[in-house]
Amino acid sequence: MKSNIDYSLYLCTDRGLMSCKTIEESVEQSIAGGATVVQLREKDCCTREFYELAKRVQQITKPRHVPLIINDRIDIALAVAAEGIHIGQSDIPATVARKIVGPDMIIGVSASNYSEAAKAVQDGADYLGVGAMFATGTKTDAIITPLDDLKRIKQDFDIPVVVIGGINERTIPQFAGMGIEGYAVVSAIVAQPDIKKAAEKLRGLIQSL
Amino acid sequence: MKSNIDYSLYLCTDRGLMSCKTIEESVEQSIAGGATVVQLREKDCCTREFYELAKRVQQITKPRHVPLIINDRIDIALAVAAEGIHIGQSDIPATVARKIVGPDMIIGVSASNYSEAAKAVQDGADYLGVGAMFATGTKTDAIITPLDDLKRIKQDFDIPVVVIGGINERTIPQFAGMGIEGYAVVSAIVAQPDIKKAAEKLRGLIQSL
Repeated sequence: MKSNIDYSLYLCTDRGLMSCKTIEESVEQSIAGGATVVQLREKDCCTREFYELAKRVQQITKPRHVPLIINDRIDIALAVAAEGIHIGQSDIPATVARKIVGPDMIIGVSASNYSEAAKAVQDGADYLGVGAMFATGTKTDAIITPLDDLKRIKQDFDIPVVVIGGINERTIPQFAGMGIEGYAVVSAIVAQPDIKKAAEKLRGLIQSL
Repeated sequence: MKSNIDYSLYLCTDRGLMSCKTIEESVEQSIAGGATVVQLREKDCCTREFYELAKRVQQITKPRHVPLIINDRIDIALAVAAEGIHIGQSDIPATVARKIVGPDMIIGVSASNYSEAAKAVQDGADYLGVGAMFATGTKTDAIITPLDDLKRIKQDFDIPVVVIGGINERTIPQFAGMGIEGYAVVSAIVAQPDIKKAAEKLRGLIQSL
């Protein structure tokens, strides 16, 4: 089942950017517009709050068959039996994560360059989050991934690649012909006045590449 | 094995109070002075840092047969195979935690009153952290547990009780004759100039009750 995931429009939540809507509303509208994966990322709330939120979001994703991926917090992912976790370079190492979550949970790993990607593949990642591809307001300290590294990653590894960081209507066409499996989007969806429409537009654009 | 834990001098770490020493040094000296359990509590560091710290602390606790208990973060506890987790009212519920960690890991639950304690016992907690017993500088927003609740908890439930919150040389004698299994201490050990000596003194005091 893990190998059939459609990563194409990969929504990352960001509480700070969702001024008018709840996370649940944003997720629901994003999926209605075509988001294929939802990653829940919460850095500043307590564990119980994150757990309760994950359960509520799961009530939206599950019936729509959209995989829910929890950022960093393996405990939350296990507690709600999420489809996956996403771990960065400052989280629990992927090899340790795999021992905890077992073989069936999706493990995504962030890589900002070729060598991090190579390590992640070796550690058994199921997909790579590669970026930041562009400077972004969401993560101001992000390291920019050289486009050449992305090309070499695609060339050398047989693993789905989701690009992240400054991904939007304007930047997506630059990846045409590269065989990128997914586009991770934060503000280009959730910070838009009409979330469903924004997601639809991006989904259409991605499918046209 | 879980039932044979000596909770009597239960050290909680607090990075903010350990100005001169590392957490590892504080733990080592506390155990040398008689601490019987170590709880690692980190609220403000990233997951990888917490994981690496837990591994380093475990290298001190493990050979000394002192159980290491991780506060809140079940992912960290699983990642390092700690002896236990301690969960508060704002963490993952104890029944969910039990499903994740299995039957063998110690689960401690914080209770600030009788009804929280009753719930924790029902949820399968292995011990209770009851308090805050006194106003404390470590946790300024702590709810004070009525002494009568503590007495009723001891009377009604057959589960080890660790009192926490303002526990020090001056307050410990007030629990004499109540059958309290453990005394959780933060600043009364780790904020003292001679940690080993402070632990020795408290251990002696507890044993004399």
